[in-house]
Amino acid sequence: MAQFSNEGEYLKSLECRAALPEGFRSAVAQLRFTASEMGLETPMSMRLATVVADEPLSSYAGVFTRNRFPGTPVIIARERLQGSRVQALLINNKVANVGAPNGAADAETVLAGLGRQLGIAPEHLLPASTGVIGWSLPVAEMSAAIPELCEGLQRTSLLPVAQAIMTTDAFAKLRSVELGNGRVVAIAKGAGMIEPNMATMLAFFFTDLSIPRSTLQALLRETCDLSFNRISVDGDQSTSDMALMMASGRHAAPPESELRAAMIELGCGLAEDIVRNGEGTGHVMRVSVEQARDESEAVILGKAVINSPLVKAAIYGNDPNVGRIFAALGDCAGTNDIELDPGRLSIFIAGEQVLADGRFRLDAAKERRLSEYLKRNAQSTQALGYPEHDRSVEITVSCGVGAFRAEVLGSDLSYEYVRENADYRS
Amino acid sequence: MAQFSNEGEYLKSLECRAALPEGFRSAVAQLRFTASEMGLETPMSMRLATVVADEPLSSYAGVFTRNRFPGTPVIIARERLQGSRVQALLINNKVANVGAPNGAADAETVLAGLGRQLGIAPEHLLPASTGVIGWSLPVAEMSAAIPELCEGLQRTSLLPVAQAIMTTDAFAKLRSVELGNGRVVAIAKGAGMIEPNMATMLAFFFTDLSIPRSTLQALLRETCDLSFNRISVDGDQSTSDMALMMASGRHAAPPESELRAAMIELGCGLAEDIVRNGEGTGHVMRVSVEQARDESEAVILGKAVINSPLVKAAIYGNDPNVGRIFAALGDCAGTNDIELDPGRLSIFIAGEQVLADGRFRLDAAKERRLSEYLKRNAQSTQALGYPEHDRSVEITVSCGVGAFRAEVLGSDLSYEYVRENADYRS
Repeated sequence: MAQFSNEGEYLKSLECRAALPEGFRSAVAQLRFTASEMGLETPMSMRLATVVADEPLSSYAGVFTRNRFPGTPVIIARERLQGSRVQALLINNKVANVGAPNGAADAETVLAGLGRQLGIAPEHLLPASTGVIGWSLPVAEMSAAIPELCEGLQRTSLLPVAQAIMTTDAFAKLRSVELGNGRVVAIAKGAGMIEPNMATMLAFFFTDLSIPRSTLQALLRETCDLSFNRISVDGDQSTSDMALMMASGRHAAPPESELRAAMIELGCGLAEDIVRNGEGTGHVMRVSVEQARDESEAVILGKAVINSPLVKAAIYGNDPNVGRIFAALGDCAGTNDIELDPGRLSIFIAGEQVLADGRFRLDAAKERRLSEYLKRNAQSTQALGYPEHDRSVEITVSCGVGAFRAEVLGSDLSYEYVRENADYRS
Repeated sequence: MAQFSNEGEYLKSLECRAALPEGFRSAVAQLRFTASEMGLETPMSMRLATVVADEPLSSYAGVFTRNRFPGTPVIIARERLQGSRVQALLINNKVANVGAPNGAADAETVLAGLGRQLGIAPEHLLPASTGVIGWSLPVAEMSAAIPELCEGLQRTSLLPVAQAIMTTDAFAKLRSVELGNGRVVAIAKGAGMIEPNMATMLAFFFTDLSIPRSTLQALLRETCDLSFNRISVDGDQSTSDMALMMASGRHAAPPESELRAAMIELGCGLAEDIVRNGEGTGHVMRVSVEQARDESEAVILGKAVINSPLVKAAIYGNDPNVGRIFAALGDCAGTNDIELDPGRLSIFIAGEQVLADGRFRLDAAKERRLSEYLKRNAQSTQALGYPEHDRSVEITVSCGVGAFRAEVLGSDLSYEYVRENADYRS
């Protein structure tokens, strides 16, 4: 991704790749409501977005949170994906519709309104919601906004939807790739609460390629495992995260290997966008765990580093604190019973070896160089509306016990993270 | 514990319970050194502390970190506890002696000096260290300080040792209990990096009761499991934590049940001191998980709540954000494959029900009351040098699936935590 210096430049670059695949229309609308049952009398705004296929599609896929208390939209969407057709999504921000007293009935009422307006059977409609947990959907206001939403349907760009689904996101996330005569366009939202299994993350993939449903499901599952499930902003996994994909089948698909590579590229790109956009993220950390006994252990060890509050706070402070990385790895290995021999462990930051065979290899000059490196790769912790750059802090852990590797992405821990999450609802 | 309004009052209260059990002496000393291999030319101060029994003891016990990369003192102490006698401890702060190039030899050199001075065989001496990981012990300066240290040995108070082992601790931690004709006195240090298995935590228990070594080991293990292993400041488990106990055997011990209750009371008291004193702690959270299927699941679920950055940040912001507690529990249950039925789950804050059978029970008045409750139970995030009060934020989770319960203690997540941990070494 290029370097941007303002939001306009960034949005222009997204617009260039935002064309909807053939066979889809999309629209967004805004509405006002008050969460008066919570005593909040100040009206708030909610955005509604929809993506509608020209006919009921037989090829679609979904991957959902493993949170044991999934939100109502997750429950409904998971069930509907067992059916034979899907035609449209309805997405709202602001209220996650989790644990609300009449959550399921509320969601169905709103979806039924959309179905009537568009002439689509309700069972072909999927809901997706993100926002505060526990609040009820403003059903009347949402239903009233449906006609206006449908009037706005257009075929040119998915960017308005990428913008509509943002919550605390600082910038819209959209990636696309051309494949044969068709394309895949994907959007995502997510900023805090990002840990394995795509926490408070919504991602939507659309393509006009012709791909069998079972292939689509396998590809989406693998893409999520290799991208959204390898990032962490704060280790929290939400009740609402989901990734959905719809294929309109207008063009022949390329060989599966090509499709797979493209999907993973899209997923990893969006995953990186999410981390870079993490609430108050001052550095993106890319932790590569090499020479592990197997890939899942490599992922677990990498996540232990990017989820350690002490490591995260040190990186935020531009402190190349190797001791905390070392301690986090040992803690994780002890807790998860992973064989890890300190005598065979090496750690590198920015390619410089800072631990060899379990012994620290640090000196004053190296510490200074690494601190300067961290400063150079920092980004503003303020929401700029665009990614400042695409640089990361590169940490490599070499276990010396096997031949497997994995890479995970995480954010540091800044004052701004705390502020944003202490005041989210106020 | 009473309420204190300044450090002097608090120290006076500790002094009243700080008398050493019979058969022990203690001393502290201070020294200056420079971490010149790290390019830090400003001299730093380190404190040394020792507790010496009048003769080699046959009754002692130790519990250690499960971090797979334990520090040198952990490795040495763990090995020596396999022997037949222990007579003294030597404790230093500032340098943890973890991963340092000649860590073992350095520790042995310093211990040998203490042994020569006191006429104790080196294998009867245990080291304990806390501080920065990766740095080497300043062996010359520590050895030079040994004679002065030994000159200061006294029998009156353990409080100077409790103060000497502090690192980022805001106040000294000391608890004691009278039992029969003897007593148990315990001290601890630890502020950040506190998670299961007593991370960067040192705890030392001394008694003049006569207790068989095997009983002592079992009691210390159980005490640690029920106290230090049920608290969390930041989820990080250090390479250096240990709890040690020595018994001089001067008085007959009471029945084991009485001893057990006393030990657990001491351990839980110190554990609460540690959380209250956590780096930047603005609230202590006490999470009680009831009606769980078994005790270990109750502990895991409770820890998921106190370790969720989103829950912690909300509590810091005096926001009774039930949604985040609910999401953290569901995340934990999904990840750890714990059976948890949202329809049977209830959550209470300060005794008020906020979730019943998986549905949120919140209204504006209740939210206001709970926010006020959080404000009332906040403490200063600045290090005052004494605990302001002993109030906690009481959260109860009722799983509705079994008959087991457990309680865990954790701290919130404040700006000050980040500041302290971003700048620790500077």
